[in-house]
Amino acid sequence: MQHPSIMEPFYLTKEPYYQPVGAEAVLFKAAYESKRPVLIKGPTGCGKSRFVAYMAYHLKRPLITVACHEDLTASDLVGRYLLQGDETVWADGPLALAVKHGAICYLDEIVEARKDTTVVIHPLTDDRRILPIEKKGEIVPASDDFMLVISYNPGYQSVLKDLKQSTRQRFIALEFNYPPRATEIQIVAREAAISEEVARRLVGIGEKVRNLKNHGLEEGVSTRLLIYAGQLIGKGIPPHRACAAAIADAMTDDAEMHRTLMEIVRSFFE
Amino acid sequence: MQHPSIMEPFYLTKEPYYQPVGAEAVLFKAAYESKRPVLIKGPTGCGKSRFVAYMAYHLKRPLITVACHEDLTASDLVGRYLLQGDETVWADGPLALAVKHGAICYLDEIVEARKDTTVVIHPLTDDRRILPIEKKGEIVPASDDFMLVISYNPGYQSVLKDLKQSTRQRFIALEFNYPPRATEIQIVAREAAISEEVARRLVGIGEKVRNLKNHGLEEGVSTRLLIYAGQLIGKGIPPHRACAAAIADAMTDDAEMHRTLMEIVRSFFE
Amino acid sequence: MQHPSIMEPFYLTKEPYYQPVGAEAVLFKAAYESKRPVLIKGPTGCGKSRFVAYMAYHLKRPLITVACHEDLTASDLVGRYLLQGDETVWADGPLALAVKHGAICYLDEIVEARKDTTVVIHPLTDDRRILPIEKKGEIVPASDDFMLVISYNPGYQSVLKDLKQSTRQRFIALEFNYPPRATEIQIVAREAAISEEVARRLVGIGEKVRNLKNHGLEEGVSTRLLIYAGQLIGKGIPPHRACAAAIADAMTDDAEMHRTLMEIVRSFFE
Amino acid sequence: MQHPSIMEPFYLTKEPYYQPVGAEAVLFKAAYESKRPVLIKGPTGCGKSRFVAYMAYHLKRPLITVACHEDLTASDLVGRYLLQGDETVWADGPLALAVKHGAICYLDEIVEARKDTTVVIHPLTDDRRILPIEKKGEIVPASDDFMLVISYNPGYQSVLKDLKQSTRQRFIALEFNYPPRATEIQIVAREAAISEEVARRLVGIGEKVRNLKNHGLEEGVSTRLLIYAGQLIGKGIPPHRACAAAIADAMTDDAEMHRTLMEIVRSFFE
Amino acid sequence: MQHPSIMEPFYLTKEPYYQPVGAEAVLFKAAYESKRPVLIKGPTGCGKSRFVAYMAYHLKRPLITVACHEDLTASDLVGRYLLQGDETVWADGPLALAVKHGAICYLDEIVEARKDTTVVIHPLTDDRRILPIEKKGEIVPASDDFMLVISYNPGYQSVLKDLKQSTRQRFIALEFNYPPRATEIQIVAREAAISEEVARRLVGIGEKVRNLKNHGLEEGVSTRLLIYAGQLIGKGIPPHRACAAAIADAMTDDAEMHRTLMEIVRSFFE
Amino acid sequence: MQHPSIMEPFYLTKEPYYQPVGAEAVLFKAAYESKRPVLIKGPTGCGKSRFVAYMAYHLKRPLITVACHEDLTASDLVGRYLLQGDETVWADGPLALAVKHGAICYLDEIVEARKDTTVVIHPLTDDRRILPIEKKGEIVPASDDFMLVISYNPGYQSVLKDLKQSTRQRFIALEFNYPPRATEIQIVAREAAISEEVARRLVGIGEKVRNLKNHGLEEGVSTRLLIYAGQLIGKGIPPHRACAAAIADAMTDDAEMHRTLMEIVRSFFE
Repeated sequence: MQHPSIMEPFYLTKEPYYQPVGAEAVLFKAAYESKRPVLIKGPTGCGKSRFVAYMAYHLKRPLITVACHEDLTASDLVGRYLLQGDETVWADGPLALAVKHGAICYLDEIVEARKDTTVVIHPLTDDRRILPIEKKGEIVPASDDFMLVISYNPGYQSVLKDLKQSTRQRFIALEFNYPPRATEIQIVAREAAISEEVARRLVGIGEKVRNLKNHGLEEGVSTRLLIYAGQLIGKGIPPHRACAAAIADAMTDDAEMHRTLMEIVRSFFE
Repeated sequence: MQHPSIMEPFYLTKEPYYQPVGAEAVLFKAAYESKRPVLIKGPTGCGKSRFVAYMAYHLKRPLITVACHEDLTASDLVGRYLLQGDETVWADGPLALAVKHGAICYLDEIVEARKDTTVVIHPLTDDRRILPIEKKGEIVPASDDFMLVISYNPGYQSVLKDLKQSTRQRFIALEFNYPPRATEIQIVAREAAISEEVARRLVGIGEKVRNLKNHGLEEGVSTRLLIYAGQLIGKGIPPHRACAAAIADAMTDDAEMHRTLMEIVRSFFE
Repeated sequence: MQHPSIMEPFYLTKEPYYQPVGAEAVLFKAAYESKRPVLIKGPTGCGKSRFVAYMAYHLKRPLITVACHEDLTASDLVGRYLLQGDETVWADGPLALAVKHGAICYLDEIVEARKDTTVVIHPLTDDRRILPIEKKGEIVPASDDFMLVISYNPGYQSVLKDLKQSTRQRFIALEFNYPPRATEIQIVAREAAISEEVARRLVGIGEKVRNLKNHGLEEGVSTRLLIYAGQLIGKGIPPHRACAAAIADAMTDDAEMHRTLMEIVRSFFE
Repeated sequence: MQHPSIMEPFYLTKEPYYQPVGAEAVLFKAAYESKRPVLIKGPTGCGKSRFVAYMAYHLKRPLITVACHEDLTASDLVGRYLLQGDETVWADGPLALAVKHGAICYLDEIVEARKDTTVVIHPLTDDRRILPIEKKGEIVPASDDFMLVISYNPGYQSVLKDLKQSTRQRFIALEFNYPPRATEIQIVAREAAISEEVARRLVGIGEKVRNLKNHGLEEGVSTRLLIYAGQLIGKGIPPHRACAAAIADAMTDDAEMHRTLMEIVRSFFE
Repeated sequence: MQHPSIMEPFYLTKEPYYQPVGAEAVLFKAAYESKRPVLIKGPTGCGKSRFVAYMAYHLKRPLITVACHEDLTASDLVGRYLLQGDETVWADGPLALAVKHGAICYLDEIVEARKDTTVVIHPLTDDRRILPIEKKGEIVPASDDFMLVISYNPGYQSVLKDLKQSTRQRFIALEFNYPPRATEIQIVAREAAISEEVARRLVGIGEKVRNLKNHGLEEGVSTRLLIYAGQLIGKGIPPHRACAAAIADAMTDDAEMHRTLMEIVRSFFE
Repeated sequence: MQHPSIMEPFYLTKEPYYQPVGAEAVLFKAAYESKRPVLIKGPTGCGKSRFVAYMAYHLKRPLITVACHEDLTASDLVGRYLLQGDETVWADGPLALAVKHGAICYLDEIVEARKDTTVVIHPLTDDRRILPIEKKGEIVPASDDFMLVISYNPGYQSVLKDLKQSTRQRFIALEFNYPPRATEIQIVAREAAISEEVARRLVGIGEKVRNLKNHGLEEGVSTRLLIYAGQLIGKGIPPHRACAAAIADAMTDDAEMHRTLMEIVRSFFE
C-alpha cells in the first residue's frame, strides 16, 4: 500500500450499528477471502449499505461508496485527465483508488449507472482481477485486499435497468430483506431513542404496510422511515401526526392509499 | 463555520410574511433538530418557497435555493473545476456551500432535475450525512446546521418525473395546500394593498376556480395570481379586466374554460 | 445603473409604429409599475413584438429581445465563463444584462426554449426578483426598472411545448389578436405605402383567409404578409401574382388550399 | 462595406446559365428592393440554386450558400469564439458575414437545419433587420444590400421537418418546378453538349418518369440526371446503358420500378 | 498539386486483383472524365471496394477511403482546428485532402454516416464542384482530378438509413452483384491458393446459399467468405469444418438455418 | 517492433488453464497464420476469454483485451490527442497499439460497442489490413503478427445489438458452448480446489439448470458460478447455502424460478 494516507478518510472509525439476521456475514467473509465480488439484492432501506459498512469495519478495510446514477460513466469510476497548470494530470477515480489501495468499493444501485460502468468492472470480477485504464494504456492488478460489492433492488427491475446475465454471473449474491420483527423493534427503539413499546407499534405498522406492496404500493416502508417516525414522537409530536409526516406523506401521493396508511397508523395509536 | 462572509448574501434580513396554517413549522423544526431532511409537497403557488424562507429566518440559517430543471446535473450542485489562469481551481456548487457552511439547501421542484442530482443527495439523507465530491476524491461531512429541503408538486406526477421510493423514503414529508379562506383573505389584502372586501371576492373566485381542477383545469389558481389581480385593481384597472389578465388569460388558452372563468369573475364583480 | 453605455444599443431611438386596440398599454404599464412580469399570447405576426418595442420606447427602457429556440439554455441567458488570454472571464448573458441595468427583457416564443430557461426565470418572477447566477455563486437583485416579458403562441400548444402552470401562474397575461379591420387597413396602407383602397382589399382577403383557420390552415395570415403583398403591388407586380407570392405560396404547400386562397384573392382583385 | 476583400471569393465571375420561365426574376428583384427575404420552394434538381446564383450575378451581390443539415446550429451561421494563441478570437459565421457585407445569404434546404437556426433568422426577416449575436452581446444591423434566401422541398414535408408558420410568414415565396419541355431540351442539349434530337428524347423520358411520382417514385427525375445521361451518351456509351446508370440505377433500388424505368428508356431509344 | 508528398501513402503501388464483369470500368472512366461523382450499389463483399482501388490504380489517382459510421460528422471529413502549442492549427480532413490534391475520395457505406456528411458533399456534386469549409469561411474549388465515389448496400435500405433523392440524383450509379460463376471460381482459386476443383465446389455452395436470401438469410454469402473457407482447407482443415467456421457459423446464429447451410456444404463435400 | 517494452504488460507470463474441447485451437491457429480475424460466439462464462488468453500464450503474442460497452467509440480504440503542457500529443488507443506492435486485440462483446467501432475494424479485416487514423491523416499497415478477435453472445441478439452481415462476413467464426461433463468436472474440481465428487454434483446441477434456458431462464449457469459454489463449500459453507448464494440468488430475482433452482440443488445435495 503506497500512500496509506490517501485512504484515511475511507476507514470507518467506529463500529456501525448492525444486527446480523442470517449467514450474510459468514458468506461475505468467505467471498472476501476467496477474492470474489459480492452482489447484494434487496428493497430500499433494508440495511444493505449499513451491512457493507459493518463488514468493512470488521474486515478492517477502507470503504469507498459510489452512489450510481444515470450519468455515471466509466471515467467517473476509473479516473480522468485534469488540466493543471501546464500539464494534464491523471486523477484516479474511486474504483481505481480502491483497486490500488485494497479498499472495498461499494457501487450502490449499480443498475442506475451507464452501461459502460457495469462492463468496466468485468475484468475485476473474473480470474484476471485487473483494472484496464484504457486512457493511460495501463493495466492495474487489484490489490489482494480489494473487494468489489454492488447492490441492486430487484423491485425496480425493468428491461432497461436490468443487470445483464454476463454481469450477474460474476458475483456471489446475498439476498436481503427487512429485519425480522424482534430485530427491527430493537433497531427502531435504539436508533430513535424511544421505548420498546412505541417501537413495537411502529414495527407493527411497518409489517401491515409491507403487505400492501403490489396492492397499490410500489415498495414497502423502510426501517429508516419507522425510525424517523419514532424520532418525531420522541420530540413530542403526536404519533398520528409523526406517522403522517414520516410514513404516509413520505410514501404516497395517492389520497386513497394515504387514507389506508393512516387507518393502519390509527389501529396502532388509537 | 470557516468563511462566514461567503454566506452573507444567503441570510434573510427581514422576516418573510408567512401565515402558519397547521403543524408545519413544528414538524420542520423537529426535523431540523433531528438532522433529518424534509420533503414539501403541494400545488403551484401555495406558499412552499415562502414557508422555507420563513423557517430559515426563524432558525437563523442562510438559505440557498436552487430551482431545479431538466439540465441541472450533479456537478451544478456539487461544484466543478474552473480554469483560472494557469491552474484549474475548484468552485463549490450551491449544495457543497450549504453542506460546508451549515445552510438550508432548498432544491425546488426536485423531480425536474437530472436523475444524478437526486442520487447525489442520498449520502446526505441517511446517517452518513456526507457529501462525496467524487471529482476531488473527497468526503465532506455535513455541518451540524446543514439541512436539506426539497419540494415536489404531486400534481405533475408522471412515470418520467416521479420521485423514486429509494429517494422519498429518506425524507420527512409535509403536505401543503392553499391557505384556508380567512388566512388567504388576509394575505391577499396585505400583499396587494387592497380592502378586505375586494380580497374576500378574489379569494371567493379562487375557491370556485380551484373546484374546476380535474374538470378541465390542470391546476388550481395560486394565491399569487389573486394578489396580482388585486394589485391591478389597486392600480385602477376595472376588476373584470384585472381578473381577465391576472387569472383567466394567465391560466388557460382554452376559449370554453376562459368563458367559465370569466363567469365566475362576473358572479363576484358584477 | 453602473455602465449605461453598455445599454445604448438597446434603447429605441424612434417611436415604433403601433396602433393600440384595447387596454393592453394600460395593463402593461400597471404591470411595469407593480414590478410584475407580463406574458403576451397571440398568433404569428399580429404585432406582439411591435407592441413590446412600443412600450419600451414609451417607458424609456432599453429592450433586450431574445428569440428562443430549442437549443437555448439557461447559460445563454444568464452568462458564461469565457477563456480570455490567461484567465476565464465572466460574460453576462442578455437576461443578466437586463436584470442589472434595468432593461425590459423580452423572451420571444418562450416555449421553444430548453426547459431550464423557463425555470431560471422563476426567482425573477416572484417576490424575490433575484437572478441566481449559480456558476458564480452570486445572487443578483433585479434593478427596480427591470421587467420580464415573454410571448407565446397558444396555437402551437402541444404536450411537449406547453408552458407549465408553475411558470404561467407567475405572469399577468395579455391576449393579442389581429387588429380590427379599420386599424389593419390603416397599418397596411401606411407600411406598404399603398392606397387605402388596395389596403382595404388586402385586409378583406386577410379576413376571409383567417376564417379558414382550423379548416385546413394551421394559422391565419399575418398582417405582415398583407403588407408584403401591398409592397409587391406597389412595385408594379400584378395583384394576383403579388398575392400568390406573398400569401398563397408563403402560407401553404397544399395544392387544394392554394387554389382556395387564390380564389379568395381573385374575388377581391378580379 | 469595411473589408470588401473578404467578400471576393463570393462574387460570381461569370453569368450562370439560367433560363427564366416566368415572373420569378421580377419578383425576386422586387423583394430585394423591398428588403424582404425570399423562400424558394420546389423539387430536387429543378434549378433553385442555379436561379439564386443567376440573381446574385445580376444584382451584383456576393453569394454565400450554406447547405443546411441536421447538425447545423445557430453558431455555425452566426459565428463562434476560437482559441488563438493567448486569446479567444471571434470568427464570423457565413450569415454574419453576409449581414455585415451586404451579401445574399442562401440557406439551402432550411428545414434540414437545427431548429435554432430557423429562429435565429427571425430578427433578420422583420422590420428590425438585425442579427443579434448573443455570445457577444451585440446587435448587428443588416447592410442595405443584405438579402436572405432560403429553399425548401415541399415534397419532403413531414411533421418533424416542416417550416413553422411563424417562420414561413416572414418570406415572399416563389414556387419552382421542372422547366417546360422546350426550355428543358435546350438546357440538356447545351449542358451535355449533345444534339437537340437526343436531348428531346431524354426530356421525353423525364416527363414520363415524372408522371410516376406518387406511383412508387418518391420524386421525379431532375434535369441534372438527364444531363448526366446525355454526357455519358456523348462519351460513346450506348443510350440504354447511359440511362440505366444516370437515371434508373440512380433513382431506385426497387427491381420492379427499375424495370418500368428501363421500359420508358427503351420506348425512346429502341 | 502543392504538396504531392502528402498524397504518397494514398497511391496504390501494385495493381489490385480485379476481374471486370461488364461495362463498369468504362462507365467509371466516362464519369471521371465528365467530372461526375459515382455511386456504387451492391451487396456485402461483392467487390465494390476492390473495384474502386482497381480504377484508382488505372486512373493513376491516389485513393482516400473513409469507412462511414453513425458518428462520422462533416468535421471528420472536412477538417477541424487542433490546439497546437500556442495556436489553433487547421487540419484538413480526408475529403478536403482529396479535393485539394486531386484524389479519388471513396466514402464507403455512406448511409451509415451522420446526415450532415451527406449534405456536405452536395456542393461537390453539382456544377460548382466546391468544398465550402464553413469553419474557415473558405471555399475550395475541387482539383480537376478530384472524384467522389460513394457506396451503398440497397439490401440494408430502411427509412432511417436511406439515401435522400436530393443526394442520389447527383450521382451516376453502378449496380454491382456477385461475380458470374466462372469469374468467381477463378477468384477463389487464386486468392485462396487452392485447386480449381475445390474452388468450383465452394462457388457451388455460394450459389445455393445466395438463393436462400430472403428465405431466412439476410444477405448472400460473400466471395470473401468462400476464399476464407478455401484458405482453411488449404491449411489442412477438413472441408466441412472449414465451411462451418468460414460460412455457416460466420453467417448465422439460427440453429435451423445453420443445419440448412451445412447440408448444402455436405452436398458438395460429401 | 519498435518499442517492445510498451507491450510487456500485455504478455501472459503463465499458461492460462484451458481444456480444449474440439478443433477450436487448430482453427484459431490456421486463422492466425492466414492473417484472418476470428469471431468467437457463445454464452456467458463458457470460457471464451480464457481460450483467447490460452491461444495468445501459445502463439507468444501480447494480448490486449477491450471490454466493449455502449459508450465505447472509435476514438477509444484508435487513439486521441491529449493536451500535454504546450502541445497536443497523440496517444495510441488499444487497437492502434495492437496493430503497430503485433498483438492480438480482443474486443469482448463487440455488439455492445458504438457502431463506429465495428466499422473502424473493417479495413483491418479485409485484404488491406490497414488502420486508417483519420484524425492524423495516417494509414497504419498492420504488423504481420497482428490478429483481431471479437466475441459475441448470440443469446442476446436483438435488432439493435446485432452484428451486421457486412461485419460478420469478415471473420472466421468459432462457436463455443459449455464444456462437456467430464471436462467441466475436472475444471470445477481444480479451480475450486474441491473433491471430484462435489464437483460432479455441481456439474450435475449445472446441466439441469441449463435445460431451463428458454423455460424462464434467460441464460444457462456458467462454469464460473459452479466454481464459486465449490469455493464457498470449500470454505465450509453448507452446500445448499453456497448454491443459493452462488447460483440461485446470482441468476434470478424471480421467486418461482428461485424455488425451482433450489429444488435442483437439493436433489444433488439432499
